[in-house]
Amino acid sequence: MEDQGFSTSCRPALFAVATLAGVLGTAQGVAAQAITDLQTPDTPLVLKAQGSFFVGGEKAEQTQVELGGLGPGGHITVNQMYVRYMVPQGGEGNVPVVMVHGATLTGKSWETTPDGRMGWDEYFVRKGHPVYVPDQVGRGRSGFNQALFNNVRAGTAPAASLPPWLRFSDEVVWPNFRFGAKPGAPFPDSQFPVTAVDELSKQGVPDVSFGGLPTPNPTFKALAELARRLNGAVLMGHSQSGRFPLEAALLDPTAAKGLVLVEPGVFPGRYTDEQVKTLAKLPVLVVFGDHRDTPTGISSRPSWQLSFDGCQELIGRLKAAGGQAQMLDPAQRGIRGNSHMIMQDKNSLQVADLILQWIDEHVGKRTGGNK
Amino acid sequence: MEDQGFSTSCRPALFAVATLAGVLGTAQGVAAQAITDLQTPDTPLVLKAQGSFFVGGEKAEQTQVELGGLGPGGHITVNQMYVRYMVPQGGEGNVPVVMVHGATLTGKSWETTPDGRMGWDEYFVRKGHPVYVPDQVGRGRSGFNQALFNNVRAGTAPAASLPPWLRFSDEVVWPNFRFGAKPGAPFPDSQFPVTAVDELSKQGVPDVSFGGLPTPNPTFKALAELARRLNGAVLMGHSQSGRFPLEAALLDPTAAKGLVLVEPGVFPGRYTDEQVKTLAKLPVLVVFGDHRDTPTGISSRPSWQLSFDGCQELIGRLKAAGGQAQMLDPAQRGIRGNSHMIMQDKNSLQVADLILQWIDEHVGKRTGGNK
Repeated sequence: MEDQGFSTSCRPALFAVATLAGVLGTAQGVAAQAITDLQTPDTPLVLKAQGSFFVGGEKAEQTQVELGGLGPGGHITVNQMYVRYMVPQGGEGNVPVVMVHGATLTGKSWETTPDGRMGWDEYFVRKGHPVYVPDQVGRGRSGFNQALFNNVRAGTAPAASLPPWLRFSDEVVWPNFRFGAKPGAPFPDSQFPVTAVDELSKQGVPDVSFGGLPTPNPTFKALAELARRLNGAVLMGHSQSGRFPLEAALLDPTAAKGLVLVEPGVFPGRYTDEQVKTLAKLPVLVVFGDHRDTPTGISSRPSWQLSFDGCQELIGRLKAAGGQAQMLDPAQRGIRGNSHMIMQDKNSLQVADLILQWIDEHVGKRTGGNK
Repeated sequence: MEDQGFSTSCRPALFAVATLAGVLGTAQGVAAQAITDLQTPDTPLVLKAQGSFFVGGEKAEQTQVELGGLGPGGHITVNQMYVRYMVPQGGEGNVPVVMVHGATLTGKSWETTPDGRMGWDEYFVRKGHPVYVPDQVGRGRSGFNQALFNNVRAGTAPAASLPPWLRFSDEVVWPNFRFGAKPGAPFPDSQFPVTAVDELSKQGVPDVSFGGLPTPNPTFKALAELARRLNGAVLMGHSQSGRFPLEAALLDPTAAKGLVLVEPGVFPGRYTDEQVKTLAKLPVLVVFGDHRDTPTGISSRPSWQLSFDGCQELIGRLKAAGGQAQMLDPAQRGIRGNSHMIMQDKNSLQVADLILQWIDEHVGKRTGGNK
């Protein structure tokens, strides 16, 4: 980003600090090297439109205490879903792609990578697709329902009724996101930009969706509605939201045009034959990175291979029901070392190209764009 | 947005529902009309660069309980500030503008308006300025420190130690944001797009900054650092963050090039003569809308006129110290009915033009862009 006059002279030193903090998990301040790492593309991005809006949400009446005490009680909106979008000039006829982030993260997952490269959001736009990036209900710009927390504070609800707020430690991210078996020790072929691992750490936000959201998760319905409003879209989920495209498609089987499940987390795989029959009407792509046997360090989710196996089983059932379902395992194509955060890996655009090719072949051929 | 094939046939009916819900504050579902209201500009937006990054943040060591219990204890990053940016093609030499949102809101404030028009973020880019939109530390994609909440849940910290999570009710927003004296009764000359008031309601997120953040607010330091990294910027705050540009400038008087305070909230005005002397070295613009005498419905902050008067006093002190400080009161120029959410008002671009003109005259003349 030298065009903006950022000094880059201190970059190596800052990198060294960031790397040390990342590897050792020290409690020192985190170096803010990110802005000097931002890369400017060679060609401008030409957008027909960009902006943001909300999908879903309903009114709730709350007391003054539940609203935090400053103003009087009344109504607020809860369970709405924030969506940011970019429509490429000349690409408005192509199928939109909706990218949903995983646990303890926000839509930031799909934006600029931790080491300053272009995110999948912009890359898919440059390839001709309108792109929509939500924050899941309960996180980021979608907010959450704060009433219970304020009631506990006031003593009118028991503390034990609070849901947990989940975050992953920097240390457990290394094996769980499969950068390496241990913190600070990347796999020799790791594709994750581990020198910038502290920038990934900054992407973390508290996640209330493990017990603190209505059931079913309001994001399912919001995604179905978003796809319907777009007159069809490819729904892409990642990790905790890996199965969300399936759930949205079950709510409205005509809304989405294709489902992409990137590294879906613990997979229920408990879909009935009837549900599988419904899902088999849509093209489904599952994407997994490498080193899936790595022990995650999280006892309830010992390895990602289990999720992979569950997805293989689902793919088999979808195919048996006449569906177009397939696994994209870059390692089988000789592309090794991809991590759980595959959209941020050093070869992220190589993987994106494989997904774009699948969309072309199974959902709809792009016109225009920078193919 | 008809180019994307959105159906607009149901728009009037959806609008009617949204308006009714807005006026009456009913507990019914909120109609999702927003996506059909999105307006596509006549000309494409050409960006040299866009993306996001973080500023600030430090490591904290937390227990398994504090991290929500799923994984083991370890380090996370807290107090980082998310920033999204757009740099216009040909505008990379112009002064960047940083836009900070107010209480119970996020950077969304500056994006697409509730009724689907272009936000100030894109408008300032189209006028040639690189634009940076943060989420304040503690909100949106910047996250917050969840440790205390999990400790209270586990019974190891008292419930009374929790900070409040603030949100404003839809009802109190009407007088407090000065759409009208009472809910559902807009001022005859109101500039706020009140038919879309439910879309503003969806922008609300719980706000922990009234007691739940470190002191001083980490956003002050992050803004100073951002301005420094940008080699100078116009820092613009709104409402609760209206004074943040002043606080950032006091932390690093050489970082910012100009300060714009849009409808700053309750104003301490307790700056020492020494601080005023420092601030007087920077051009300062204060912007206020109309109907400032309206009783807010919030007892601790009875009217916005008090904030206006405090700002007038500060302007006087800055001028006495040799500074270039001024009040932009559109009503004095015959532009009536502007609300507290002036960047979302129907004449938002007219007000933006006045600010752009001030930047040209007091901070730096733009080159390029679509002046």
